Amino acid sequence: MVTGTEVLTGRIADRNGPWLADRLLELGVELAHITICGDRPRDIEAQLRFLAGEGVDLIITSGGLGPTADDLTVDTVARFCGRDVVLDTALEERIAEIIRPMMARFTGPGAPDFATVRAANRKQAMVPAGAAVLDPVGTAPGVVVPGAPTVVVLPGPPRELQPMWYKAIATTEVQQAIAGRTHYEQQTVRMFGLPESGLADTLRHAQEVIPDFLRLEITTCLRRGELEIVTRYEPDAAAAYGRLLELLRERHARAIFSEDGSRIDDLVARLLAGRRIATAESCTAGLLAGRLADPPGASDYLAGGVVSYSNDAKVDLLGVDGALIAEHGAVSEPVAEAMAAGALLRFAADTAVAITGIAGPGGGTPDKPVGTVCFCVALGDGRLLTRTTRLPGERADVRERSTTVAMHLLHRALSTA
Amino acid sequence: MVTGTEVLTGRIADRNGPWLADRLLELGVELAHITICGDRPRDIEAQLRFLAGEGVDLIITSGGLGPTADDLTVDTVARFCGRDVVLDTALEERIAEIIRPMMARFTGPGAPDFATVRAANRKQAMVPAGAAVLDPVGTAPGVVVPGAPTVVVLPGPPRELQPMWYKAIATTEVQQAIAGRTHYEQQTVRMFGLPESGLADTLRHAQEVIPDFLRLEITTCLRRGELEIVTRYEPDAAAAYGRLLELLRERHARAIFSEDGSRIDDLVARLLAGRRIATAESCTAGLLAGRLADPPGASDYLAGGVVSYSNDAKVDLLGVDGALIAEHGAVSEPVAEAMAAGALLRFAADTAVAITGIAGPGGGTPDKPVGTVCFCVALGDGRLLTRTTRLPGERADVRERSTTVAMHLLHRALSTA
Repeated sequence: MVTGTEVLTGRIADRNGPWLADRLLELGVELAHITICGDRPRDIEAQLRFLAGEGVDLIITSGGLGPTADDLTVDTVARFCGRDVVLDTALEERIAEIIRPMMARFTGPGAPDFATVRAANRKQAMVPAGAAVLDPVGTAPGVVVPGAPTVVVLPGPPRELQPMWYKAIATTEVQQAIAGRTHYEQQTVRMFGLPESGLADTLRHAQEVIPDFLRLEITTCLRRGELEIVTRYEPDAAAAYGRLLELLRERHARAIFSEDGSRIDDLVARLLAGRRIATAESCTAGLLAGRLADPPGASDYLAGGVVSYSNDAKVDLLGVDGALIAEHGAVSEPVAEAMAAGALLRFAADTAVAITGIAGPGGGTPDKPVGTVCFCVALGDGRLLTRTTRLPGERADVRERSTTVAMHLLHRALSTA
Repeated sequence: MVTGTEVLTGRIADRNGPWLADRLLELGVELAHITICGDRPRDIEAQLRFLAGEGVDLIITSGGLGPTADDLTVDTVARFCGRDVVLDTALEERIAEIIRPMMARFTGPGAPDFATVRAANRKQAMVPAGAAVLDPVGTAPGVVVPGAPTVVVLPGPPRELQPMWYKAIATTEVQQAIAGRTHYEQQTVRMFGLPESGLADTLRHAQEVIPDFLRLEITTCLRRGELEIVTRYEPDAAAAYGRLLELLRERHARAIFSEDGSRIDDLVARLLAGRRIATAESCTAGLLAGRLADPPGASDYLAGGVVSYSNDAKVDLLGVDGALIAEHGAVSEPVAEAMAAGALLRFAADTAVAITGIAGPGGGTPDKPVGTVCFCVALGDGRLLTRTTRLPGERADVRERSTTVAMHLLHRALSTA
């Protein structure tokens, strides 16, 4: 149950429902309903009543734990569970300690005084009687209210909800609520460059040749050009999964890049150990460098990059020959190769990736429509991997998809290095 | 009511709920609940029963209109509304006409034959007796079942649902269902640099001093360091909103950056018209340049940028003095200023932004803990705006939040330019 008028009205996309759905799947807990409502106690209570009436063992709520008057989840859940809310003074003190250093950053006229803020946050230390308290990750504590159903109350911001979820499932109260679940194995295979219909054909064949195939619960998902195949099964159906994996390898060896669920970003980060990489980006304008810097410790291999959005920047910062741009156009394989060579040289790197393309909505031509993107991976030993693709979708899709294609080209180039 | 196991389990993000929420808001129809369930008739029926029990005038469903056996929405809605499903032969013929040319694209072994497909699609021509039919956008028709509540059944794919929605609201059935709606005004104010509790204090004060304050429906949301205040009210409560806005201006003039809902990215893009901007990024590693390139037409003002992740890159690509780094450290105001100056010069720009910081998890010191980030905006006329902040959260939060701080510093520098 996701609460928050900003989520209900679509101003914020709900990230908690899908994230919790994944965690429940991992635990083997079946998810029956996701409900979203605004910050109105009447609607919150109606959804609690509905879910309880459906006979669920566990309700998880997110949101409505802040210090303002429209944050009402704890009160509403307490009333629904027939419990009073009581002040937890030890918790109040812990919240005060969290707030004190945060307040130090705000000074001057208009800044709230500490006493005011502390009063607002006393509200956050009011918990249902007999509930287990989950310590704040931000300033809002969560609670677990035991019963039938057990209700877990978590904060709305994903970076607070996610760590707190792991504390919640460790409580006796939640463990008891989910005790009846089935234990499942779950395996994830990832592919790149295979259309979904090709996989569908293989799965139809698998159904004919693999005994116990129907004991595998398979979901496939095409996302950003990558195919994700998630298979869930009870432990004694492991042989059927083994047969399926063999079949996938037989038919799609080139497309499979991960059999253990590893993501392309992790695989590339591993291959970059001991290397020094630089980027040269036009249409993606830094998104690839930003993505390469996502993992902690990226400074071990990421030297840097140039965002050469203008042609001048390609010439001045990367040493691309202006005549090459005039002859082939800025979006061309020769220019991508010259950008990669420039990045290798300027950053004294041994690995470079260049991207130049037309993200749209303007700039397309009959020869090079919107979505045309040229890539080059250049290695220190002189090897080049150059590709041109035509990517579907709008400006944001083309730019994001381009970083994914670049990651896969890097993976390919470095796997055989 | 969004149906579909792939949405419930989070494999596909729901785009229909937020889109429909926006449309309903535009119409002045109050949205009370969004519910999501899998392709199980029992759960679909339970949600219909819940929503009807809440006394809503209108239920909109999305998904479950396909030709396969797990597409059950029409049958379930018909049963819920106490109506039989009947074959609409004219509709069947229209669907057949849509399918025929699509089938021509599939040939060879394994391709489904036309008769099989047509039989599967006959299912899609079965509609609840007395319902208004909405012609297919893909192959699936929608239906409007009049009653209390009226139920609008739409397909799942957004590109089919969206055009069909406009046909649905044009029907007499839906117009009657929403005849009692209230017309609302909605206003959005955005602030930066004010803690949520400071706003809560102001709103408590507003409640005391503004007559009719309770006729304003206010939701506040803290996101990436920005506070969004959305107020909805009936037109005759406009004076109360006027008083609220005055109070916000009195108390938080410096924090307010938008009174008309404009986002910081749009405001910065407008201010950059006629300018030429370059970036120099360390911890954000291209995310700021990437964000500046989000709007179509960004090439009018974005020259490019340097991702100077390593110290060598700061020296070689941006001309930062190595001695400056040795003396003050790479994360320092003097180095941020030198990076910005270098970006101005190398890209022949008139506006430059530099970011250098410690995103973590490693690299923090007692003096400069994780989250310490230095910014500099440099303008062609020699003006500098330099700031050091300490940002909360983990690596990804610090990096993303840094781009937001940089956008606000840019906004401030350019507003007074």
